[in-house]
Amino acid sequence: MSTFSIGVDLGGTNLRIAAVDTEGNLLEKITLGTQVSKGRDFVIGEMCDAIGSLTTRYASKGTLCGVGIGIPGIIDKRTGLLRESPNLPGWHDTPVRDDISNRLGTDVVLENDANAAAFGENWLGAGRGYDEMLMITLGTGVGGGLVLRGGIWLGMNGMAGEIGHVTVDPKGYNCKCGNVGCVEQYASATGVMRMARDEIATGEAPGLARLATGRDIEFNAREVFNLAIQGDKGAQRVYERVGWALGILIGDLINVLNLRMYVIGGGVSNGWSAFAPAMFAELRKRSMVYAATAPPDEFIPVGASARVASLQPPPYRTVVTRALLGSDAGLFGAARLPQVKDCGVKSAISTK
Amino acid sequence: MSTFSIGVDLGGTNLRIAAVDTEGNLLEKITLGTQVSKGRDFVIGEMCDAIGSLTTRYASKGTLCGVGIGIPGIIDKRTGLLRESPNLPGWHDTPVRDDISNRLGTDVVLENDANAAAFGENWLGAGRGYDEMLMITLGTGVGGGLVLRGGIWLGMNGMAGEIGHVTVDPKGYNCKCGNVGCVEQYASATGVMRMARDEIATGEAPGLARLATGRDIEFNAREVFNLAIQGDKGAQRVYERVGWALGILIGDLINVLNLRMYVIGGGVSNGWSAFAPAMFAELRKRSMVYAATAPPDEFIPVGASARVASLQPPPYRTVVTRALLGSDAGLFGAARLPQVKDCGVKSAISTK
Repeated sequence: MSTFSIGVDLGGTNLRIAAVDTEGNLLEKITLGTQVSKGRDFVIGEMCDAIGSLTTRYASKGTLCGVGIGIPGIIDKRTGLLRESPNLPGWHDTPVRDDISNRLGTDVVLENDANAAAFGENWLGAGRGYDEMLMITLGTGVGGGLVLRGGIWLGMNGMAGEIGHVTVDPKGYNCKCGNVGCVEQYASATGVMRMARDEIATGEAPGLARLATGRDIEFNAREVFNLAIQGDKGAQRVYERVGWALGILIGDLINVLNLRMYVIGGGVSNGWSAFAPAMFAELRKRSMVYAATAPPDEFIPVGASARVASLQPPPYRTVVTRALLGSDAGLFGAARLPQVKDCGVKSAISTK
Repeated sequence: MSTFSIGVDLGGTNLRIAAVDTEGNLLEKITLGTQVSKGRDFVIGEMCDAIGSLTTRYASKGTLCGVGIGIPGIIDKRTGLLRESPNLPGWHDTPVRDDISNRLGTDVVLENDANAAAFGENWLGAGRGYDEMLMITLGTGVGGGLVLRGGIWLGMNGMAGEIGHVTVDPKGYNCKCGNVGCVEQYASATGVMRMARDEIATGEAPGLARLATGRDIEFNAREVFNLAIQGDKGAQRVYERVGWALGILIGDLINVLNLRMYVIGGGVSNGWSAFAPAMFAELRKRSMVYAATAPPDEFIPVGASARVASLQPPPYRTVVTRALLGSDAGLFGAARLPQVKDCGVKSAISTK
């Protein structure tokens, strides 16, 4: 009899629950709105109901080996506490792991959502077959997950992978973390909007100015991207700055870690064609390790992600590429966690 | 019968060879000038003679388990070739490992000198007892070595740890690597001199100007440090920039890796009291992971390195501190390499 697990992606907007087998086949996915306003108990109750019904539904097809949950926030892996989550107010220092584990009577693994996404892309996406990779998720903020020797690198206390707060411009934009010039201020959706507003303020970005005028809701990063691919100079400058910041960040990480695979996902990664040329130019200039190991055909246009397969590098090639699983990366990664832990595939690296 | 190994530190100026037992006791150290101008064969011949005489001398006391050699340059660990060394012209693509191994009939392990220094500090110095640490060596350039799970992190092809070329100011000084604003331009002896000359050029650093005037040989980083601790404002500004650059670098690495231990060595680290306050201020501002895990008594004055022992942190403390072994770190680390490989203590992490 085969084994399956349940992955949960608990976001501030959507709560997604999926049953996934150990081959990575999706058995079923349930998407609910996360009713944060109804409180923690309500959300956990809904989650447990969905997990319970999936477990019952697939009981005849295999053994449930556990539940993995990806949550945006700081998790104490040792105690299973959710320490802090910006999107889940009122969940501060909640024993999420034990609460759910007690309700369901099954093993539960908590993980930061960016780490879960890295684990998912490593299992089934762009990083498949690579024991080492870094995943960068460009969303509202910038998150990261580092996979070393097939496991998530947690660091001393699970705070590793905060790559959104690497400094790319020491005299740049203020970041809410207290730093100045974090990559998150340039390569997130929030950063794109801020840079677009700055372009408008110069008076030299009429296309962006038109986009922003006379609307009830704010324009978004996708619209700026659409303008950029239509040839609008102001919008192109915004995405070139995204590429500039990512080039500095990834160049630094290549120089330090010398991994084979760097994967860029999250909503802003859909702007790949607008930021990747600037990013690769910066990488070649700034990272001698990248320059020595870059593949000749590094630039993969939008829609050509199938070509990633052809990029499977010879031993000494550094690949920087797009994620393949989209918003499902975190869900699959979460489902993988209990499989790896309890099904004995590999243990995640942790320094405790 | 006990086991010992021989460590070699092959620098551009000095060639040092030591017999070291598996407890880390120095049996004997030989220091020779590296006669680079007499060519590769001559230098390797001298090295092999010294290794041979040490082996004979200690044969009655134990078994030689191998020779470890630290070399400044790029090493292909797979083939044992020295690819390139800035300090050893004419050694380009030399099969150093096999050459020496054949002459001596013993196992030889090559390693980059910054990695060897990290391994030495991890074994016997400031990083003792830590499975994970990063070592930063501030010399003529800036080198680094990353120890993960007790082994040297080599990366895809041994190029990991090039932390000297992490960007700390994207619009800063040009670096010979092709990048702009590498930390090496601010935190190396070369960087200190450059910043001191910049201070002199402003006309507002009379102390530095006096230091630089009417001398046959150039002033050096140590003299700038001496001026700084005497209260000279210009010299202090130079070392504050050293601290600023190191704060950005180490803050980035803490955010990404969340290790417990960061060790700063090399000649410029003797200026600790002049750069550490600025470094720690920058770290607290720039790294939220550091701010969350910093020890209350982070600043260790010069000469107080014994206090490192009292800093053995509780589980969740990030320690940034000075190296303890001085210029012997690389020699001990090189000696440790064959012990770990052949004496079965632990194998170095490699992605191959």
